[in-house]
Amino acid sequence: MSELRFDTVTFLSDFGRTDHFVGVVHSVLRQMAPGVTVVDLTHDIAPFDIRAGSLALARSVQYLSPGVIMAVVDPGVGSERRAVAIEAAEGKATFVGPDNGLLASAIGLIGGAERAFHLDNPDYHLPSNSRTFDGRDVFAPVAAHLCCGVPLDELGTEIKPSSLTPGLVPLTRAEDGRVVAEVLWVDRYGNLQLNVEPDEIAPFGEVVKVTFGGSPRIAHAVGSFAEVGAGALGLLVDSDGLVALVANQASAAEMLGLGAGDEVTLGAADDEGPSPSLTTAVDGPVRRSADSSP
Amino acid sequence: MSELRFDTVTFLSDFGRTDHFVGVVHSVLRQMAPGVTVVDLTHDIAPFDIRAGSLALARSVQYLSPGVIMAVVDPGVGSERRAVAIEAAEGKATFVGPDNGLLASAIGLIGGAERAFHLDNPDYHLPSNSRTFDGRDVFAPVAAHLCCGVPLDELGTEIKPSSLTPGLVPLTRAEDGRVVAEVLWVDRYGNLQLNVEPDEIAPFGEVVKVTFGGSPRIAHAVGSFAEVGAGALGLLVDSDGLVALVANQASAAEMLGLGAGDEVTLGAADDEGPSPSLTTAVDGPVRRSADSSP
Amino acid sequence: MSELRFDTVTFLSDFGRTDHFVGVVHSVLRQMAPGVTVVDLTHDIAPFDIRAGSLALARSVQYLSPGVIMAVVDPGVGSERRAVAIEAAEGKATFVGPDNGLLASAIGLIGGAERAFHLDNPDYHLPSNSRTFDGRDVFAPVAAHLCCGVPLDELGTEIKPSSLTPGLVPLTRAEDGRVVAEVLWVDRYGNLQLNVEPDEIAPFGEVVKVTFGGSPRIAHAVGSFAEVGAGALGLLVDSDGLVALVANQASAAEMLGLGAGDEVTLGAADDEGPSPSLTTAVDGPVRRSADSSP
Repeated sequence: MSELRFDTVTFLSDFGRTDHFVGVVHSVLRQMAPGVTVVDLTHDIAPFDIRAGSLALARSVQYLSPGVIMAVVDPGVGSERRAVAIEAAEGKATFVGPDNGLLASAIGLIGGAERAFHLDNPDYHLPSNSRTFDGRDVFAPVAAHLCCGVPLDELGTEIKPSSLTPGLVPLTRAEDGRVVAEVLWVDRYGNLQLNVEPDEIAPFGEVVKVTFGGSPRIAHAVGSFAEVGAGALGLLVDSDGLVALVANQASAAEMLGLGAGDEVTLGAADDEGPSPSLTTAVDGPVRRSADSSP
Repeated sequence: MSELRFDTVTFLSDFGRTDHFVGVVHSVLRQMAPGVTVVDLTHDIAPFDIRAGSLALARSVQYLSPGVIMAVVDPGVGSERRAVAIEAAEGKATFVGPDNGLLASAIGLIGGAERAFHLDNPDYHLPSNSRTFDGRDVFAPVAAHLCCGVPLDELGTEIKPSSLTPGLVPLTRAEDGRVVAEVLWVDRYGNLQLNVEPDEIAPFGEVVKVTFGGSPRIAHAVGSFAEVGAGALGLLVDSDGLVALVANQASAAEMLGLGAGDEVTLGAADDEGPSPSLTTAVDGPVRRSADSSP
Repeated sequence: MSELRFDTVTFLSDFGRTDHFVGVVHSVLRQMAPGVTVVDLTHDIAPFDIRAGSLALARSVQYLSPGVIMAVVDPGVGSERRAVAIEAAEGKATFVGPDNGLLASAIGLIGGAERAFHLDNPDYHLPSNSRTFDGRDVFAPVAAHLCCGVPLDELGTEIKPSSLTPGLVPLTRAEDGRVVAEVLWVDRYGNLQLNVEPDEIAPFGEVVKVTFGGSPRIAHAVGSFAEVGAGALGLLVDSDGLVALVANQASAAEMLGLGAGDEVTLGAADDEGPSPSLTTAVDGPVRRSADSSP
């Protein structure tokens, strides 16, 4: 076997595992780059959900093996959207996927894009009569060629990192001494990850008032799930370093009827509620927090 | 590690991933053929659905690594149905599984069966008090022995390829200038793959009338999902080279209420409907299109 | 690559495959122990269901590769419950996971714990600000270090195997010549595995009366699913050597409305029903059948 530049392809998609899509991508990689190990991050991103894929990648990126990171949540497959390869982390990682914001947050977290290429050289793709399965026909062959040492500038045309589609991450906003937050993610266990850093709610202390829709709930700051009482609500710093609403051996999402994208307001336990004259409904700002430009 | 004849086992089943079945098969392979990589095609074929498994294998086969291709959708496990190994592609592929039609379409697509063997030599199986888990007790050990170089004629008795159970693939039929087709598969995204080659509907042009159950719908020929308007229906050549009914970031299956096995009629946009006197209800012919005999 | 003590990590959890959890654990293992292969047993154990995880591990254990067996169903993560490593099978297997009973049945089946260690040396863990993802931060790094040859007594403090949390497996009880059993598991196909050895029901012969809730059903002893008539109920020895209630290409669980934990009584076909004066409701005993003490 020839020497490999990279020996790992990490792979995330919205392909699901029910169809043959993931297995065929593995097969293409195995044939074109035989010594490479494929690590499946997940393939159960909801169909077309670029934001969810982007966040899953961002949660994982600092733990991933050096090599190629291939991510495919790609509702625009076959259209004019660009297929790209983006080098980051001083060349230790090359991201491959559609230029639709999916890769941006993860790349932003590890220092931003260093070089970017539009994968427009069909010599490194598989021939196909359709344009609906770029995971098989474009991204896997490119990932394999990268592992085998083909330089990026043979795979396509260099483009400016600043031309890449940025990722959008919702910002919290302060309002009357409260933090208006958003549910970023409901995990397997029903834990509700918020877009809130621990510092933002530190002033509220150990007991926090949580408001959404109707009447408020009280949540206690805890260090582990087991510290939450039965039927009660806990607030803990989760494995991504963000604040999460949790229950003990139960789903906080079900308990509260909340899901990804829902708004939640956190405040001090003795907060009497909004003072009407000061409350103005405003749209939350959205920052381009993970712009992958250098 | 001893030298391997094959270094890849591709594995498809209806075992699901919730139980330990797939993991145990991997473990058996790993112990009996340590240097071999297992590529999981999918294990979420619906329980007992031989046809769905057969089609998933056929969609994948031209992309699979040389080696052993093990497929297990096997409602007859433990009964008189034969366990078989089938050599194809000039010896580059050996298929292992039940002789129930599951393997036939894929083998047919790569040139047909060259040699076939009934896996009736228990020396190469794992001992077991039950006959319910041949994936673990028969197919995985046989696959491992094949990878390690055991010749096929030690694993069982040679049989005629013509004695193998054929695969059945539904044919379209022409009726009053229309094409009466069938939904072969609903994929993860709700795209409806039909048993229709692009040539068959070329005469209808860019706009096609789609009839099923009640009132007809219009579908526009597109090259990518993004070209389909919101709420509209597209017809595209999918990644298997077949015609599919699709929507844009939505499920065509849900939109139309269609599923695998349903009948759909395609015709010209200006087709005024069937001329009653000419319409005769006939059962569609079924071809043995993927007969694995040579 | 340095020489490895173990080259396989077998991995079971309740992490699901929808989130990034499993992929991140794979990534950590791959970076810390590059030559190691990870075999996923299953990650779809129901959240927090220690018993189901324990039974899946026990069903698999005799087929697993030598090496590290890492199992994480861990509702107590971050609390005072101990993280442990347990050596068994004359050092050929080291189990890593929480000390909550999850590992006990499997270890019991292969001869019991030989040595046990509390994983209290943080030098071998990943630094983290949270205590919610020990799979990533504790168990994976420990598994990787074990594969690389770090001795157990560097990873933590030796503890007595007798101090480990035992596994609980429900016993059948005899009652008026009948066997009162429990559904241990409903598999992918709807087969109902009972906590019954074939010997226990041998006296009833080929036709067995099955009672649960209301009216009794008749089940015929079969050797394969295909022997069961349409709509009928079969009793067979499953791939774990236990008695299972099954149907032919259908779900016995759906047919009978039964699930894991439900009680089922087996008796002779000509059994006229309980003789009232002799029937006393008693709670079934529970044995510590898989106590992992040596």
